[in-house]
Amino acid sequence: MNIVLLDPRQTESEFWTISSKRQLEHLQQHLEIQVGDTLKVGILNGKRYLTEVMEITESKVKIKPLQEETVPDKIPVTLIVALPRPKVLRRLIMDAVTMGVEKIILLHSYRVDKSYWQTPFLQQLDHYIELGLEQAGDTIPPRIELYKRFKPFVEDVLPTLIRADQPAYVAHPYAEMRMPYAVNHSCTVVIGPEGGFIPYEIDLLMKNGCQAVSVGNRILRTETAVSYVLGRLCV
Amino acid sequence: MNIVLLDPRQTESEFWTISSKRQLEHLQQHLEIQVGDTLKVGILNGKRYLTEVMEITESKVKIKPLQEETVPDKIPVTLIVALPRPKVLRRLIMDAVTMGVEKIILLHSYRVDKSYWQTPFLQQLDHYIELGLEQAGDTIPPRIELYKRFKPFVEDVLPTLIRADQPAYVAHPYAEMRMPYAVNHSCTVVIGPEGGFIPYEIDLLMKNGCQAVSVGNRILRTETAVSYVLGRLCV
Repeated sequence: MNIVLLDPRQTESEFWTISSKRQLEHLQQHLEIQVGDTLKVGILNGKRYLTEVMEITESKVKIKPLQEETVPDKIPVTLIVALPRPKVLRRLIMDAVTMGVEKIILLHSYRVDKSYWQTPFLQQLDHYIELGLEQAGDTIPPRIELYKRFKPFVEDVLPTLIRADQPAYVAHPYAEMRMPYAVNHSCTVVIGPEGGFIPYEIDLLMKNGCQAVSVGNRILRTETAVSYVLGRLCV
Repeated sequence: MNIVLLDPRQTESEFWTISSKRQLEHLQQHLEIQVGDTLKVGILNGKRYLTEVMEITESKVKIKPLQEETVPDKIPVTLIVALPRPKVLRRLIMDAVTMGVEKIILLHSYRVDKSYWQTPFLQQLDHYIELGLEQAGDTIPPRIELYKRFKPFVEDVLPTLIRADQPAYVAHPYAEMRMPYAVNHSCTVVIGPEGGFIPYEIDLLMKNGCQAVSVGNRILRTETAVSYVLGRLCV
């Protein structure tokens, strides 16, 4: 947690109030804050401030904004990823948000167990986004969309994301073309499930405008692949 | 698990035997292997083979090697990372091994809690390496070294890893120089703890030959930073 993210309603008076149990625990146990300390705070969907701690009680921390700080820019990437196992979902969403992708699409695929779509963790996406924003020092949530059917998404939605100057890449171990580095324009990246996309899926992605690109012959876990690929693509 | 890693002693007769409980469970529950299936197998510190499943019992699977396969090359990177929290250690080591680094150094730093050096997870490094090799389809473990004292390591050991054609980079959010892409020679990468290196540590690293480089103004978790930086650096 590198900033404390507040709802705009918590910042309407002169002094702002931090009252979430999770945030208070972090501030008291990890940062051991004291009255007079400065604290980085972001307003969800708004600006970011350096603040001063004015008062600490068991149930809240009162702060006063001192000066505005810069919110980091998003990276112009749409990340499409096969829905991962529930226990991986939290870290994957949190990391993608931390790295600053503009939009995340969770997609079904042949090797995604259908039961994953029933996990209660999918109700927690807003919380995972909040954790990612607090890690990154960002205040603007990315959009998240869920598509439970692979073919209609790839045929009807994916082509609307692709233009001549906005390519889409699907990471595929057997592709001949290598994933590019430091792409300085918008793009879409597609990451398959554990076990990979099946050949039919790769074909359908390519027919609908995706370029299959390799990041080497080592097979990465989905969440590792996401950060590996973003590190490579992002300027 | 993309290959089954065997000890050389398990491969001394005509038919080889898989008998580890973890591997058998994966083969039976996830892959649902049948007699006649092919199976990718690696010999620890040795070669990799496509094999055929000859016999399946509750306590073992017998296989026969069919043909040799290619072991992926290592990437010429030494990864130096501040010892992470015990629950992160497993994934961090597994991922670094999967991505193919030649050598991993776990280092103390001011913001590493001293209790982390007492964790029983540090006795499990060989197991985490095995998991990473099985994920990557690799058979050659990287070297791992542990240094519990920051200053002697940075002053006495680090300089021996650095040459004109083998630079060392420390990821630092406030550096002006950007982390390079697609480095086609050996290099060393230094990743700090959650909360970052303290200024004294950054100074000492730079005095001893490290270049401080930035990967942007978003603060990543340690394990995310490792894959983000390797994806960017590796050819």
